[in-house]
This record gives sequence, structure tokens and C-alpha cells, in this order.
Amino acid sequence: MISSDEAVRLDQSDPLRNYRREFLLAEGTCYLDGNSLGPVSSRVAEGLQEVVSQQWQPDLIASWNKHGWIDLPLRIGDQLARILGAGPGQIVCCDSTSINLFKAIAAALSLSQGRKKVLTTADNFPTDRYMVEGLSKLMAGRCELVSCDEANILTSLNDEIAVLVLTQVNFRTGRLLDMKAITQAAHDLGIVVVWDLAHSAGIVPIALDDCNVDFAVGCSYKFLNGGPGAPAFIYAAKRHLGSLEQPLSGWLGHRNPFDFSPDYEAHEGIAQFLCGTQAVISMSAVEAALTLYDEVSVEQLREKSLALMAFFLNKLAQHSETSALHLVGPKNLAQRGSQLAFEHEHAYGLCQALIKRGVVGDFRAPNILRFGFSPLYLSFQDMDFAVDQIVQSLAAGEAIQSGNNQRSLVT
Amino acid sequence: MISSDEAVRLDQSDPLRNYRREFLLAEGTCYLDGNSLGPVSSRVAEGLQEVVSQQWQPDLIASWNKHGWIDLPLRIGDQLARILGAGPGQIVCCDSTSINLFKAIAAALSLSQGRKKVLTTADNFPTDRYMVEGLSKLMAGRCELVSCDEANILTSLNDEIAVLVLTQVNFRTGRLLDMKAITQAAHDLGIVVVWDLAHSAGIVPIALDDCNVDFAVGCSYKFLNGGPGAPAFIYAAKRHLGSLEQPLSGWLGHRNPFDFSPDYEAHEGIAQFLCGTQAVISMSAVEAALTLYDEVSVEQLREKSLALMAFFLNKLAQHSETSALHLVGPKNLAQRGSQLAFEHEHAYGLCQALIKRGVVGDFRAPNILRFGFSPLYLSFQDMDFAVDQIVQSLAAGEAIQSGNNQRSLVT
Repeated sequence: MISSDEAVRLDQSDPLRNYRREFLLAEGTCYLDGNSLGPVSSRVAEGLQEVVSQQWQPDLIASWNKHGWIDLPLRIGDQLARILGAGPGQIVCCDSTSINLFKAIAAALSLSQGRKKVLTTADNFPTDRYMVEGLSKLMAGRCELVSCDEANILTSLNDEIAVLVLTQVNFRTGRLLDMKAITQAAHDLGIVVVWDLAHSAGIVPIALDDCNVDFAVGCSYKFLNGGPGAPAFIYAAKRHLGSLEQPLSGWLGHRNPFDFSPDYEAHEGIAQFLCGTQAVISMSAVEAALTLYDEVSVEQLREKSLALMAFFLNKLAQHSETSALHLVGPKNLAQRGSQLAFEHEHAYGLCQALIKRGVVGDFRAPNILRFGFSPLYLSFQDMDFAVDQIVQSLAAGEAIQSGNNQRSLVT
Repeated sequence: MISSDEAVRLDQSDPLRNYRREFLLAEGTCYLDGNSLGPVSSRVAEGLQEVVSQQWQPDLIASWNKHGWIDLPLRIGDQLARILGAGPGQIVCCDSTSINLFKAIAAALSLSQGRKKVLTTADNFPTDRYMVEGLSKLMAGRCELVSCDEANILTSLNDEIAVLVLTQVNFRTGRLLDMKAITQAAHDLGIVVVWDLAHSAGIVPIALDDCNVDFAVGCSYKFLNGGPGAPAFIYAAKRHLGSLEQPLSGWLGHRNPFDFSPDYEAHEGIAQFLCGTQAVISMSAVEAALTLYDEVSVEQLREKSLALMAFFLNKLAQHSETSALHLVGPKNLAQRGSQLAFEHEHAYGLCQALIKRGVVGDFRAPNILRFGFSPLYLSFQDMDFAVDQIVQSLAAGEAIQSGNNQRSLVT
């Protein structure tokens, strides 16, 4: 039987225990939705204050050079490279994940020598599929979306496929795919691979260069805590930078944007994935958020994340009241991202009831309750508290009283 | 001879004189670069404070609904609609101007029934041309960029042209095009028209609906003072919303994004132009900035802008030292946006020398000095001061001492 004392002991020996103070989270809130939107940290709040009152306000237009705004996308790109196992000059922070998917998939197709099929999973996050659909319409016959089940990725690969688009951690089930093995298998068949890291960046150890990944995209507002809707990122392997084409060829992707040349000539580096002017204020928040990774490694975060999830599941299993909660996805935590998803007949109602009790997870239609585990601000005592609340809520039948399952709210 | 007393008198009777206090501009700075990046206003600084400390921080993921983040793009779109002469439900704030150009031009082509030529001006802002180039490569033979001189737009129209893409105010010369006449002439030949309002939104009276404009895009960080790189916007006439296709079909443009359907179905309204998740913090700054237009009309701004430019030019003409400055573009101010551009042999050096004297304009290669006139925070005494500094700087030969013309800095 896991005791609350054990949670206290685990917290005392946790090397990350002091990072909770960095986050402006109310006492009594157990925030298990950092896989959807990370909370404010004091360094982000200060970064935002600085960009407004110490840069934009006094220096106005000169800030673009004086405060390096013009280099923000590449500077943050190199911060991300260190987090994602990539050498410098291969990541740029810009636009949204959806827009970057469009660039990456189009660029991948430009390297695919006449193949036209873009394979992705049937239950990938919808935007990954929708962006291929949009590209298909434009490319009229030279891009075709095909689907497979997540369980059958490797057996679905063949030499007619141009591009494979996968999300490393499934947004619903939390399943973690094997980036290295899948990328290798795809390459053996001449397939270019695009990884979406939305649910893995900053929380799962990733080695983009070592896995020979071709392209990757992701967002910075989940485990990276960069702020709501914060700018996304795109990675392109150095070996492709001289030969690819990306169609969102805006002026900041030009080789010499300030020549204002009438004709486009792509930048030779990763900056060719820039398009228009970026939202500097939101981007400053990302830059501030990522400084945390100068102190903490993703491996440390992974270790604690696995320990938190194990504690949570073990304690949950000790209570018969939780038998109606069915874990979705792999039971082996090593095959999951930092998220646990449970089916429950009244998942929506349970989610609402838990929020009232200070345990914030989220609901995904039709019947899934998701909990994200962000080890920077969660403790083992939080796990202890959360499970207690779940048990009490289920015992009291609150899930049913709180309403039927309905449409999901914001991701 | 215009006297400084006249500037004082004009300021005293200026109905907009109190708005200077809204802006956090240092005393002694005459900021003539609001056509490139508008300054911070206290309402924007407060809006940013609020979104972080009163929304994101306490309410976390629930903010998407509780604070209406999910509706920000459409809510700001309707604020912009009032400023741009459009009915509600036709503008959405999102992404960058470049990305929105891609959407608008692709959507225009989807309505063009087999025509493939996209006409724009040779000296349009480069990104407007580059985005057509990118689209052309993707559409392989179904999109072709063709160019004309700005002076020959009307005579360059013919029934082989699918789409006409124009910037209403030329970023270099400040020339203002006749939106109504050109749109009508294009429509007479079955051409779909896309207007780029980057240099006219919020400062030139615009009547998108009345001019029967098909599509428009623009940015919010110039005269609208929404913050560096603030999210842009896109307008599509209501009559097209049911029949167009736009290819950046991300999940937030879906009819029911939170159904997470594997197949894309476009939203029936302007939300179909949304793609990915938007940068909420930067967007909150835009929303705060635009509240100023609840109090002030674009017509009032235009009236004062014309008066400021006339004062500036008249006073400049009284000094023989300024004879080396040659106004570029129309001499008739009614044919200009809110910007004066001058050729000068040492434009770069003069620009730098003036910045040291507290008069901030900008330089555009090869030899243009630009001054923007934003009547919310500029006074007639500012005009008086600016011309005095120009005259003194030229008399002292500072332009030559400050260096040769070189590459433009940030737009």
C-alpha cells in the first residue's frame, strides 16, 4: 500500500523539487493539463515585461536590431535544437504547427522524386491530416493522403509512399512511437519522414540528428510552457537545406530580405522556412521559457515524469472505486509520452467534478479523461492528492451528476 | 512663412491632441516611423499585463473559454471590420500578412474558373510577389505571376488575368491607389481582386464592402499600433465564403474543430481562413490597441494626417537647405497614404543623423528616406521640430559624415 508518507519522502529526494517555485500556480491546484497549455513561469512574466517596457517602448523600431528581434526565430531555434537533439542551424521558431506542417510536407514532397502518397495515421491529430488535404487540392494529383492504423505503421510502408507524417506521442492515447526504428524503416524504402513533436517536445528525450529525421515540427505551448498559442517550430536536416523547396516563400525566407528584390531567392539555411514577420511579444515569452532547459535536462524530466505516472497508477490501482477507469494505450510507461488517458463512461462529468476539487485534467470526446504530467511543477504529493480526489469523486458519484459526455473543449 | 506659433495654434485646436498621452513615447522623440512599427500605448501595456496575470496565470487552460481566447481572431476581425468599412463576419485576425496573402491568392484562384495569371506591380512589397511565386511552384502551370508598372495597372488588365494583387499604399513611394475604380475595372473583366492594406489599415479611410473588394489582407503593427510582428488579418467578401477554397486548411478552420474529425470540412464562415492555434498574447495586444478606434474615426485621423504632412512639406519648402531632398510619389497629398518619401544622395546618412537629433524616420535602399505620420501621437509642433532638425542637419553636412547608403534595416 502506497502511503502519503512515501510521497513526502519522494519529494524530499527529488532534484527538481525547487522548480515548482518558478511557476505562478495557485496553491491547491494540481495542474494535470500542462500537456495542453503550460502555466506561467516568473521568467516568462518577466520576459514579457522586458520586451514591452525595456525594448519596444524605449527603442521602438530600433529594437529589431538593438534587441535582436530579427534573429529571435533562429535564436529560439537553436535553443530548441539543444532540447531536441539537433545541431545548430536546423530549427527555426515561427508560425503555427499547422503552417509548419504544410511547409515540411511540401518540402518533403519536393525531395520525393515523383512519388505522391503521403501516409499518416488515421487517428493522428486532425490538423496533420487536414494540412495534407489542403496541399493535395493545390497540387492536383501530385499529393495524395493515405492512412493506416497506428498499430500497422511499419507494415504499411512501401516504395510508392513519398512522405510519412507521424506524431511522436498520440494526443489521445499518449502512445510514444519509436522514432529511430520507424525513420530507419521508412528511409530503407526511400520515404521522407516528418515528425510532429507537439506532445513530446521538452518532455521526451529526442535525438533528431541521431535518428536521421528529415523534418519535424512542434509547438512550444505545452510542456515547453511558452504561452498560449506560442509560436511553433520547424526542423529540417542540414543535408536537405540545399535541395528542398518550401512554398510559403515569404520575404523573411529570402536570402537577402532587406534588398527588397522583386524575385524570390531562398535563404541557403534554415531561415528559408521563415515566411512573414513573427509575433515578437509571444516569441519573447518562448525565449524566456526555454532558458529553463539551460539548467534541467530532458532526461531528468523524463525520469521524474515516469516516476510520477507510476506513483499515480499504482495508487489508483489500490482503490476499487477506480475500476471504472480504463487506461487507454500502452500499460508499459516507457511506451508512453507524459500523459495518461482513461476511458470512463462519464469522462466529461468526472473531469468537471475533478476540476472543482482542484485537479485539472481535460476531456476528449467521446469518453476520454486525460492527465498530463509535467515534472517541473508537479510533486509526488500532488499525485497523492489527485488520486485521493479521483477516488472520493467516484465514490460520491459526482461524474454522473456533472453531466453527460459532450464536445471536447480547447486542446 | 510658417511660424512655430502657427504650430502651437494648430495643436490647440486639434481634437486629437489628448491621444499623445496614451502612448509611452519619451519626451524629445519625434517618432516618424509609425508606418513601420507603431509605439506602445498604455492600453496595450495593460492588455498584455491582463492576459498574463489575470487570465493565463489564474485560469490556465480554462482561459480559452472563460476569457474568450478561442474567439479572439473573430472578435478582433470584427473590430477591424469597423475600421476597414466591412460588415461583421468577413475578417479574421491571424497569422502573418504573407501567410494570409497565400490564402487569399489561392482562394481567389479557386474562384477564377481556369484562368491562371496573377497580376501584380513590379515594385509591390516583395512578399506579395514571393507568395505568388511559391504558389506557382505548387500549382505547376495553374498559377503564373505577371507584372506591370504601378502607373499602368488599368491598361494591363485583360480577360486572361485571374487575380489582381495590389498594395493600396506603396511601401516605398507612399502612393495611394484608387481602390474603388481599380476593383471595378478588374471586375468588369472577371478578375478577382486582392488588396494588401499593410500601409493603409487604420490611417486611410477604406470601404471594403462598398468597393466590392473580393479579398484583403494587412498587418496590425504599423498604424494600428498592435505591437511588433502582431498578428495580421484577412478579409473575404461574404459572397465568396460559400464557394472558395483555401489550402491552409488547419484544424481551427474546420466546421467543428473540437469534433477532431479525421476529415476536413471547412467552416462556412470567415473562420475557414483560420489554420493553427494563434499567438494569444500578441493577439491580446492587438485587441487592446484597436479599442482606440471606438473613440476616434479613421476620417478624423486622415484629416489630421493630411494637415501634418502639408505643414511639414510647406515648412520644408521654405528652406533652401532642403533642395537636395526630392519628394518621391504624388505631390498631391490626397493621392498618398500617410507617408512621405524623399530621395537624397546620402539618405542613409541623413536618416542616421536625424535619429541622433530625435527625429526617427527610416531608410529604404537605394536612396530613400521615409517619414510616417501617425496623427494619434504627432503634433504640429513635432512637425515644426522635425523640419528644423532636417534643415540644421543638412546645413551641417551631417548626412555625408554619417556614412554611405547601405542595406535597409527592418521594415
